[in-house]
Amino acid sequence: MDLLREKNEMREWSRAMKRAGKRVALVPTMGSLHAGHLSLVQRAKQLADVVVVSIYVNPSQFSPTEDFGQYPRDVQGDLNKLQPFCVDAVFNPHDLYVRDANQSGTGLLESTTKSSQQAPNETIDDKRELNLKRQEGGHGHETWVRVEKLELPLCGRSRPGFFRGVATVVTKLFNIIEPDVALFGKKDYQQWRVICRMVRDLDFAIEIIGCDLQREEDGLAMSSRNVYLSSAERLQALSISRSLMQVKEAVLNGIVDVSSLVSLVKQEITSAFGRVDYIEISEQESLRPLQFVDCPAVLCVAAWFGRVRLIDNIELEPSQPQ
Amino acid sequence: MDLLREKNEMREWSRAMKRAGKRVALVPTMGSLHAGHLSLVQRAKQLADVVVVSIYVNPSQFSPTEDFGQYPRDVQGDLNKLQPFCVDAVFNPHDLYVRDANQSGTGLLESTTKSSQQAPNETIDDKRELNLKRQEGGHGHETWVRVEKLELPLCGRSRPGFFRGVATVVTKLFNIIEPDVALFGKKDYQQWRVICRMVRDLDFAIEIIGCDLQREEDGLAMSSRNVYLSSAERLQALSISRSLMQVKEAVLNGIVDVSSLVSLVKQEITSAFGRVDYIEISEQESLRPLQFVDCPAVLCVAAWFGRVRLIDNIELEPSQPQ
Repeated sequence: MDLLREKNEMREWSRAMKRAGKRVALVPTMGSLHAGHLSLVQRAKQLADVVVVSIYVNPSQFSPTEDFGQYPRDVQGDLNKLQPFCVDAVFNPHDLYVRDANQSGTGLLESTTKSSQQAPNETIDDKRELNLKRQEGGHGHETWVRVEKLELPLCGRSRPGFFRGVATVVTKLFNIIEPDVALFGKKDYQQWRVICRMVRDLDFAIEIIGCDLQREEDGLAMSSRNVYLSSAERLQALSISRSLMQVKEAVLNGIVDVSSLVSLVKQEITSAFGRVDYIEISEQESLRPLQFVDCPAVLCVAAWFGRVRLIDNIELEPSQPQ
Repeated sequence: MDLLREKNEMREWSRAMKRAGKRVALVPTMGSLHAGHLSLVQRAKQLADVVVVSIYVNPSQFSPTEDFGQYPRDVQGDLNKLQPFCVDAVFNPHDLYVRDANQSGTGLLESTTKSSQQAPNETIDDKRELNLKRQEGGHGHETWVRVEKLELPLCGRSRPGFFRGVATVVTKLFNIIEPDVALFGKKDYQQWRVICRMVRDLDFAIEIIGCDLQREEDGLAMSSRNVYLSSAERLQALSISRSLMQVKEAVLNGIVDVSSLVSLVKQEITSAFGRVDYIEISEQESLRPLQFVDCPAVLCVAAWFGRVRLIDNIELEPSQPQ
């Protein structure tokens, strides 16, 4: 398993594989891998000859108030988890963004310039150079990819800039690794839809595979952030998946009124001391909000338990033929 | 010379060339080719084994008040001009954008949906499908690439949305054609800088070559829009290039005060009945406005003569050692 830390090295690796006639799959992650990620890796092995897993924690999708600094990182643990799956390469770049001393105007957050991902060997000459660049008006990263409608609802409302950061870093990873196929978990349902739309609109020659959300045995959706739940919060958080199953059942029984279904979820979560961010039922592709489950739909939830924000979702098919 | 009209066909053509070990150059144009474009083609032939010229008129870089409908188009003339240069492929797609009946929210302009570039074989079934899509919230193009700082000054002020349209269509062309090298004229100076920045920020593995602006014998910068100048306007428009040469001379003689240099250009153009849009002297890479020509600089001009908006520019090097 090759561990690659430089963009050019990664691109060369991938191009060498393609010259040898291999089909390349990419599984983009932010590390802290769990069984959900590993199910993507397994699927990738079936779909391609070689599999690259990226474990870069992307600063540009965190807002200043979010947990970029605290986001769990465990590179050695990730490598150990990937080894048994015969992953061919792990991409863990030092940094993916051009930096300068004047980041405030670029949309990359101040705090991230001081992060652990800053180039480690910065010299006084580099600093002088950086200063000069700042005087010249700043040469930092300033190019952003936006999926202007799909980025708006759901997590887009509570996490402004999040999908811009995701679409941009995925574009960069696509351009560096040039995969034939890329796999995304449907746990991040809106993210998966944003990427599908971006690939279509920008004509990337990459097949996007959305893979089913994976749950722990007790029903909790797998997430790198689950490690931050106390055992009490963990129990309370089961209210999310429990209520999603109840909604699925209700729809099968002909209840298609969105406000009733949403109330059911809200009731479960709040009575388990969760703080709801949003609960919405949307058309699956456009994420347009629905009043009735009368087309392929998805119920998306975000809720806080203690200091941990969890998301979950379930696809719903209309119970009656259209 | 292959004329290609479908994205997939174009991509396959390009990939076949690359499999055969050929280096692929792209010259993106909007057709109506003149000697300026042809100089790009000549340069491309030197830099690569095969040359693709795209002649797609990109609707998304025109605002509703601009001349998309009237922009000169002459496909047969373009093919005739390219033939002697042994261009390998011309890409003239029917349309590059996903369309639906609800374009207003997508940033693609209403008027363009009725343009000559609309898919020609639209059936009643397609219309029904389109209507359905609209009801579902619209599935039109919604992904945009923006170079957030470089898009602001100069033409960005008078043509909002222009660089967004350019960056997005160039991304699409890059993803379809996957060239090794792409050539841009420095006539569109800001556009060239925007593309360079985008390629750096999004990690496109494409070398960008900026080629010198080409002038007619009388000094007028070559442009597809020059055909719309009356012979009187054409004479008056020479005030632009004449004043740029005077500025170059003045800088060589040690005049580095930007306001004096700009006044000189303004005086020449207005006394020739031109209407100035902007005259600015900027640092070459960041396009940050300068007060003195004390670093590599560029003077950019946009001015109207009659109903024709012309742009021109000249690079200026500081006359004194720094």
